[in-house]
Amino acid sequence: MKKVNFADKFSKFSDHWSPKVIAEMNDYQFKLVKIEGEFTWHNHGHTDEVFIVIEGSMMIEFKDKMVELNAGEMYVVPKGVMHKPHASEECKIMIVEPSGVINTGEADSDLTSENDVWI
Amino acid sequence: MKKVNFADKFSKFSDHWSPKVIAEMNDYQFKLVKIEGEFTWHNHGHTDEVFIVIEGSMMIEFKDKMVELNAGEMYVVPKGVMHKPHASEECKIMIVEPSGVINTGEADSDLTSENDVWI
Repeated sequence: MKKVNFADKFSKFSDHWSPKVIAEMNDYQFKLVKIEGEFTWHNHGHTDEVFIVIEGSMMIEFKDKMVELNAGEMYVVPKGVMHKPHASEECKIMIVEPSGVINTGEADSDLTSENDVWI
Repeated sequence: MKKVNFADKFSKFSDHWSPKVIAEMNDYQFKLVKIEGEFTWHNHGHTDEVFIVIEGSMMIEFKDKMVELNAGEMYVVPKGVMHKPHASEECKIMIVEPSGVINTGEADSDLTSENDVWI
């Protein structure tokens, strides 16, 4: 494998809420995403999900609290927990989760994006 | 869970080659490590291993090549592949791997550190 440079990979796409796979470790994938605006409420019934902020600032809204994440911070959303990510300005993040996870989880949404898109 | 701030966690320890767990996702762990100097040749027979450089610069030496990683870059060392990390100056990295992985793999080494130490 070649090394992955986050800035280089981020320069290759501009769409929002559309995860791009950059690396695979065993049966897990590392994905970069640009986010802006509001995502949809959803959960992942079979796995935890890791958010790492690379640049900018985002919120993860839960039913009972709001978590603000800035560059250099990470959060693990537990399996099955409803959450809604949002960002008032464009934010660049990395997600870590098992291969095959759909971005909108079990929610029926226009924001559901194609899975396993490499960049 | 509370969010994890990498800089805050790095400020809490100063030893080298001694991974500190900061988060768990399913049966995987995210670990911060400060490295400086040469590690030992080793491999992990049962899993890939992810290196992400948070600050500084490091090398991963393989039998047939050398990979330089700078801040904002990552590399996946495949399962079973012999490798030797080193850093001429202190470098701050994050490792992602299944819970229970020993830092020196199957090598017998003074650098083997206690496992599952949270910070």
